[in-house]
Amino acid sequence: MKSEIIAVGSEMLTPFRQDTNSLYLTEKFNELGVTVAFKTIVGDRKKDLVNAIGAALSRTDIIVLMGGLGPTEDDLTREAVAETLSLTLRRNATQVAALAARAATWRIPMPNNNLKQADLLEGATLLPNPNGSAPGQWLDTTWNGYRKLLMLVPGPPNECRPLFDAECLPRLREIVPVRYIAKRTLRAAMIPESQADKLLAPIYTEYADVETTILAHAGDIQLTLLCTKSNLKAAEQRVDELAARLEEALEDWLYSSGAESAESLEQIVLYFLGLRQATLAVAESCTGGMIAQRITSVPGSSRSFLGGAVVYSNELKTAFAGVPPQLIDDYGAVSKEVAEALAYGIRRHTGAALGLGVTGIAGPTGGSQDKPVGLVYIALSDAQKTDSVEKTFRGDRQRIREWTTQQALDLIRRWLR
Amino acid sequence: MKSEIIAVGSEMLTPFRQDTNSLYLTEKFNELGVTVAFKTIVGDRKKDLVNAIGAALSRTDIIVLMGGLGPTEDDLTREAVAETLSLTLRRNATQVAALAARAATWRIPMPNNNLKQADLLEGATLLPNPNGSAPGQWLDTTWNGYRKLLMLVPGPPNECRPLFDAECLPRLREIVPVRYIAKRTLRAAMIPESQADKLLAPIYTEYADVETTILAHAGDIQLTLLCTKSNLKAAEQRVDELAARLEEALEDWLYSSGAESAESLEQIVLYFLGLRQATLAVAESCTGGMIAQRITSVPGSSRSFLGGAVVYSNELKTAFAGVPPQLIDDYGAVSKEVAEALAYGIRRHTGAALGLGVTGIAGPTGGSQDKPVGLVYIALSDAQKTDSVEKTFRGDRQRIREWTTQQALDLIRRWLR
Repeated sequence: MKSEIIAVGSEMLTPFRQDTNSLYLTEKFNELGVTVAFKTIVGDRKKDLVNAIGAALSRTDIIVLMGGLGPTEDDLTREAVAETLSLTLRRNATQVAALAARAATWRIPMPNNNLKQADLLEGATLLPNPNGSAPGQWLDTTWNGYRKLLMLVPGPPNECRPLFDAECLPRLREIVPVRYIAKRTLRAAMIPESQADKLLAPIYTEYADVETTILAHAGDIQLTLLCTKSNLKAAEQRVDELAARLEEALEDWLYSSGAESAESLEQIVLYFLGLRQATLAVAESCTGGMIAQRITSVPGSSRSFLGGAVVYSNELKTAFAGVPPQLIDDYGAVSKEVAEALAYGIRRHTGAALGLGVTGIAGPTGGSQDKPVGLVYIALSDAQKTDSVEKTFRGDRQRIREWTTQQALDLIRRWLR
Repeated sequence: MKSEIIAVGSEMLTPFRQDTNSLYLTEKFNELGVTVAFKTIVGDRKKDLVNAIGAALSRTDIIVLMGGLGPTEDDLTREAVAETLSLTLRRNATQVAALAARAATWRIPMPNNNLKQADLLEGATLLPNPNGSAPGQWLDTTWNGYRKLLMLVPGPPNECRPLFDAECLPRLREIVPVRYIAKRTLRAAMIPESQADKLLAPIYTEYADVETTILAHAGDIQLTLLCTKSNLKAAEQRVDELAARLEEALEDWLYSSGAESAESLEQIVLYFLGLRQATLAVAESCTGGMIAQRITSVPGSSRSFLGGAVVYSNELKTAFAGVPPQLIDDYGAVSKEVAEALAYGIRRHTGAALGLGVTGIAGPTGGSQDKPVGLVYIALSDAQKTDSVEKTFRGDRQRIREWTTQQALDLIRRWLR
């Protein structure tokens, strides 16, 4: 069965705002074995809405309309569906009472146009919306002799998503032929871009029945494998087999793998630190706090992460990480020597088991022939040794900082493994 | 004139990927005075593509098709347009030569199916694509007696956007009636959410000819005013007048305002620091580097920002910012006293003119009856005095950290003003 998701709202036809609910609903549809064949975004004009609903009826079986269910003049989804399918709208007494009760609880007078939200399409079922005033509607109907399922759901994500899960999914499961789903997510760090596709495509293209999606961002790749079959075991077997082959191909670039989602690189770093009962401190120059920020985004990170220093000025490199001023004079702030001194110094100053030091040129200015924009040094230090890598990343300031952060976290992961 | 943007590609019908080119193109269309009435996302199936193109022809005058112009079997945009409009496709000799030359430069053999990219719709003009192998096409045609403009552009953002700007915009400007545009962006920090709408809506709703868009995120609001008229002066006058009234209403929540874009809060903080020739250092606990990271995202920030410390552990609060252990014992790490000691201490340790100290409970655990999750203290210290604010932010760990960062930057801005 094919579905179409229609997002209703003129604000989503501006340069500023995008529908994101459809990504969530697509995941749910795919898990049911239903393909999303079209997505449409349409404004709050009734004529356009009627046109969009007509087009959807002509080409798909299941249609979700998101938004346009509120009380204002611009909220026209109910009216447009009624017009397209030549159905009447009837005011629902139970829903009028519910709206009145809601207004009373909040001690606000109920404006008359609020009652629009109690208008129910002929033959439709009201879908309760515990998080807002506009209820959804479920309509199982026929159009030109074909069965069509229409769902009207509110637009705000915190209303749309729970209502779809609680009210639409169980009804869809009764209608859509049962399909079982197997899923796996793999994550890998710092694999060269040219290599990833060459390595992985020959494997996953062999599995036409497993949908493989690859997302790449700043040195991180995430592979999602999805297989839907009428038999759960068969689906799991295919995903397991493909996952095992991809994991082998990814070698030690692979850092996590999971049935639903896979842990982030910062979670893995914290996991290894916890396992070894080791602590970490960082001294960041060009990344300016980005590494600390990523690590501390994980709840409970304080158990292993002591903190660190953002040593933007040379004076702070000395004050917080004990880098000798002479070293900076001799080699420059962006050098292997200073990176290693930062790693060693921050470890000694904080008493951490592991110290990380990062220095580089994030740009757009500050580069030279010898030391171009994008050149970074990343060093690690423990009680036994201090070591470093030199990398040159391309792109703008933001991208260079993101790649450096990813490289630093990956270096810690490999060190601890 | 009404337009529709069609994004072609099955990957945009997965839960993982979204079309973003359409936001860019919408901005360009709006500047021409053309409304984007529909956006459609359709996969790489010819039947679906033909359906989507047919629907667009029936409801809009200008249609952009993005993607599906590559050399593979899945690239069917050209073929689908030809079928929908009953046009022939002719292999273009000049383009065949260009593809061959491109392959020769890269010393790669040219596979035969590459030649698809030289297929030109009857009556169309080839649009050169300097950033990729697939050229675009411009088609000025009629459909059921109506004039229709179709543009086929490549999907990758780095090909789509420059090609649209260089090839489509000049052609559209010759056809679409001339409109002039006036634009203004205002930004404000930490205005209470309930107040923003109450304050601003009565003003901007008076200006029906100015399109006002409000984006809000974690204590930051951005208002974009856009007015398109046949007379530039008239458009500017309306935007100037509305901007002046909104600026007055926003009082000192307003932090920047500009004709194209407005400066970010971190840029404003750095601007004030530069103006006063003052330097800043930060000691962050719960924000874990997020404040330093935002400040150092601005190129040239090293002139005013010395750096700082991420003092996650109590020991580091003492080591890096000189917070007396007794103070932490007496008041707790999350307290007004410790925040002020952090601000004072980081200033003294670094020699900065201004010190910022932040401590709080980002959650999800660590809260108590007295000190709930979301409680934060933010302190500033200069040579004259040390002062602090207490705030309680709601939401998850990420949100609390973002609000705290925004509040801290706003506090610096107000201090320096």
